[in-house]
Amino acid sequence: MRKECRLCGYGGQGIVLAGLILAEAAGICEGKCVVQSQDYGPAARGGASKTDVVISDSEIDYPKATQLDLLVALSQRGFDEYGGDLKKDGILIVDSNNVRLARGSAGHRFPMTEIARDKIGNPVTVNMVALGTIAGAASIVKLESLKEAMLGRVPAHTHEQNLAALMAGYEIANDKTKTKKRSRSSKE
Amino acid sequence: MRKECRLCGYGGQGIVLAGLILAEAAGICEGKCVVQSQDYGPAARGGASKTDVVISDSEIDYPKATQLDLLVALSQRGFDEYGGDLKKDGILIVDSNNVRLARGSAGHRFPMTEIARDKIGNPVTVNMVALGTIAGAASIVKLESLKEAMLGRVPAHTHEQNLAALMAGYEIANDKTKTKKRSRSSKE
Repeated sequence: MRKECRLCGYGGQGIVLAGLILAEAAGICEGKCVVQSQDYGPAARGGASKTDVVISDSEIDYPKATQLDLLVALSQRGFDEYGGDLKKDGILIVDSNNVRLARGSAGHRFPMTEIARDKIGNPVTVNMVALGTIAGAASIVKLESLKEAMLGRVPAHTHEQNLAALMAGYEIANDKTKTKKRSRSSKE
Repeated sequence: MRKECRLCGYGGQGIVLAGLILAEAAGICEGKCVVQSQDYGPAARGGASKTDVVISDSEIDYPKATQLDLLVALSQRGFDEYGGDLKKDGILIVDSNNVRLARGSAGHRFPMTEIARDKIGNPVTVNMVALGTIAGAASIVKLESLKEAMLGRVPAHTHEQNLAALMAGYEIANDKTKTKKRSRSSKE
């Protein structure tokens, strides 16, 4: 089992921290082998930021992500720049406040920025909302592992707010995914 | 110009955050191409933690660090586990409170844990002391870039203490490096 995940967005959305938490959730909390990386180069300075997390049951020889199983995009530019590496059957999750998907695209759309700003009351928690949607829509890491890893990485006085953001992301993704599954099975 | 840097230590010393700050100092503040990575695997769970930062003037095709130009070791186990990749003429910096070097080794020894605990008053700032020694003993990134990157990554209420730790590391390394250079040139 090897899973290649990428989170992308623009600088200031906390993409790198989210990648770190995803990596630690899988690597430290769930005992997987994980390589997490980010690069700072011309693209990053142009405003697009990304982090890759490769998760595997066995040692990782090739640490680059080139065939993504999961892509989470929080900005249009990040999606345009880095979205091409998603596998055909890979899972796509986007912040619908920032990213437009082609009609009929199978991607999950969640209004992450709106949730962070209006429901949680702090737009910088959008990265935690995004992490929550991963636990809700993809079976890559458990919600409990993300919680634990997050609490180890963010300052104590922000625990409550970040936890609320993580949960809000989880719930919207879990609900929608369930609804999709239900509507699919009712058609069958 | 390609420089491969590694920081290693044990969990809780803030190695990953230090690597992130080093990467952002070079990549965002100085406009270099940078890949920063960490892996969580059996070795990491055994207590040794490491982060690699590859810095280059041009795009980085091969993101793995295998021939280190700089190794900073904050724990004996980290040094034993990851120290073998240092180039012959690479720069070695160790926390002399935790790492023993063979007699006659050309590594720089600084009592980083002691400085963090006694001078700064908080042992968790040892990672910032370590970053400061990099600016003082190696010409990889500028002190100013590290300051800027650090202030962007740590919570505001810890700015002052982290800055003091960074400066303390810089000063001890810079003083010792100067002394070494002076004593070398007085011998010539």
